[in-house]
Amino acid sequence: MHTAAYLGNRTVGLIDFESTDPSAGEVRVRVAYVGLCGTDLHVAHGDMDRRVRTPLVFGHEMSGTVESLGEGVLGWAPGDKVTVMPLVWDGSCPACLAGNSHICQHLTFLGIDSPGALQELWNVPASTLVPVPAVTELREAALIEPVAVAVHDVRRGRVAAGDRVVVLGGGPIGTLIASVAATFGAVVAVVEPDAHRRGLVQSLGFSTPDPDTTDIAAWVEEWTAGAGADVVFEVSGAAAAVATSTALAKVRGTIVVVAIHSAPRAVDLQRVFWRELTVIGARVYERADFEAAAEVISTGAVPTASLITRVVPLSEIQTALDDLEGGRAMKILVDVQAGQTQGVPA
Amino acid sequence: MHTAAYLGNRTVGLIDFESTDPSAGEVRVRVAYVGLCGTDLHVAHGDMDRRVRTPLVFGHEMSGTVESLGEGVLGWAPGDKVTVMPLVWDGSCPACLAGNSHICQHLTFLGIDSPGALQELWNVPASTLVPVPAVTELREAALIEPVAVAVHDVRRGRVAAGDRVVVLGGGPIGTLIASVAATFGAVVAVVEPDAHRRGLVQSLGFSTPDPDTTDIAAWVEEWTAGAGADVVFEVSGAAAAVATSTALAKVRGTIVVVAIHSAPRAVDLQRVFWRELTVIGARVYERADFEAAAEVISTGAVPTASLITRVVPLSEIQTALDDLEGGRAMKILVDVQAGQTQGVPA
Repeated sequence: MHTAAYLGNRTVGLIDFESTDPSAGEVRVRVAYVGLCGTDLHVAHGDMDRRVRTPLVFGHEMSGTVESLGEGVLGWAPGDKVTVMPLVWDGSCPACLAGNSHICQHLTFLGIDSPGALQELWNVPASTLVPVPAVTELREAALIEPVAVAVHDVRRGRVAAGDRVVVLGGGPIGTLIASVAATFGAVVAVVEPDAHRRGLVQSLGFSTPDPDTTDIAAWVEEWTAGAGADVVFEVSGAAAAVATSTALAKVRGTIVVVAIHSAPRAVDLQRVFWRELTVIGARVYERADFEAAAEVISTGAVPTASLITRVVPLSEIQTALDDLEGGRAMKILVDVQAGQTQGVPA
Repeated sequence: MHTAAYLGNRTVGLIDFESTDPSAGEVRVRVAYVGLCGTDLHVAHGDMDRRVRTPLVFGHEMSGTVESLGEGVLGWAPGDKVTVMPLVWDGSCPACLAGNSHICQHLTFLGIDSPGALQELWNVPASTLVPVPAVTELREAALIEPVAVAVHDVRRGRVAAGDRVVVLGGGPIGTLIASVAATFGAVVAVVEPDAHRRGLVQSLGFSTPDPDTTDIAAWVEEWTAGAGADVVFEVSGAAAAVATSTALAKVRGTIVVVAIHSAPRAVDLQRVFWRELTVIGARVYERADFEAAAEVISTGAVPTASLITRVVPLSEIQTALDDLEGGRAMKILVDVQAGQTQGVPA
């Protein structure tokens, strides 16, 4: 079967692997669609070379159907529509014992630390499967993982109905956070310098002040009648946005750190002190977030159609990664079965 | 009456003022003892020249007795032992309306934004008075304000029994935070480079790894069996301590920003994200913290005697400030009545 793999040396290629039977406790999934995200770009660019073993079949935002069950697996049947929550924890570290297994101190992330979804047939622990509601199409279901990130972020930020929320960064995750926060009842503004992305976000009904022409702190001050934002999401990864984030939050407001910051950032701790702000990290998701994400997508509350720029076959993976890198796409799905010898699934 | 005042131009002096009768709603307090703190040093050094109007009678950690009541004041009688919670809020800003009046967006801090306690007779709004328990001596009662800071910090950090807590900075506030956290049931380590302060903290029963000879992150790792600290208090104001703080906290641990950081600090936001840390600001106190502080001191849970280096008359204010600045004292109390024409209170 064809797979897309990171080969090392900043190179991605297509490799044929023989598929293997699922081990005890595993389920073999016929992968339908795989979304490409920023983490995949980091892998492809060699940023995670110290962590990954090559060749690495990557990809972790996916949908598919159950193909067959390994020994001892109960509760699933061939044909079931599924997605995978790509986390495996050790269950014994202090974080796991304290109930935070989703950020286990020895977490295995499928698609980074072990083979991922960009392959025709993917064997995964049965415990990672999450059911996809009957009404949800497999294309949309590939967005459950990034929506679960957004649900986790919004929950970490304790967003409540009536809150004024600012999202710094209008890429796929920022847009999903805005959408999920809106389903929680928040009024949302998204700050994004790229005009194309800003236009898409605006078309979804969010306020979109242009940071290149607007004093964002003054804008938020007025937008919130002098109070400041209840919750600010830092999704851009930019040093300047970190400085902005503390300026925007109200007294006792919350700043959620969603983005990966490759270097320590200058943070206005005087402002954190003065306004008794809370700066909180949010990483991946818990199972409840994943299940909520599946539910949210099934109700149509997330603009999946607007976010999916296009669907490509596995053979176009390199062009897809280039387009994401160049900001020419929000979300690109890979149709993994297109071009496989066994054809497209039902 | 004699007062100690900041005269501007980095100069403190003794000034004689005529005392005035309390206005409606005010209480005249005969001030007994005033503790000097870091904020007073900031005022005396001119760091707050843009905020203060000179001459400014400063001082805000105090104890005293009710002398007389202004028109309309009920519930107090001459001779009552009191301390003052030195905050006056506007009651109408967004922070006040949201229930956070202690950090009102237009907060008046007595002793900075209006005359403070370093005067024989001090007129204050009746609403700022907090009763001192009968068993508590006026010397000890002058520490209720800094203990209220510590109670507020420990509550903001949600310290719970059994927690492993690290305090970065073993000055007066750090030592009080350690003491209060211990009364909440925590096991506490204090990281302090100064050998003299470290000795005092150690004598109070806390662990005191020496940061100049110990890898603090490795020490905390071992001390917490690989988990990391539940709560870290950043009380030093040092850039290096900020970097340390994120390295010490457990998965989902909390870092409380207590110190004033005069410039933005490099914060390891990747660690905040990776471990889902919470970085939270804690400023001054709420009334409940003040009342709890009075209670904590009355039970003897705070080592007031160890913390009070000495008591001086108003005439020695400059030497006292110099000794604090030079790290030659933990807490110095000013006996405001010593040398006043009307003599020492009963």
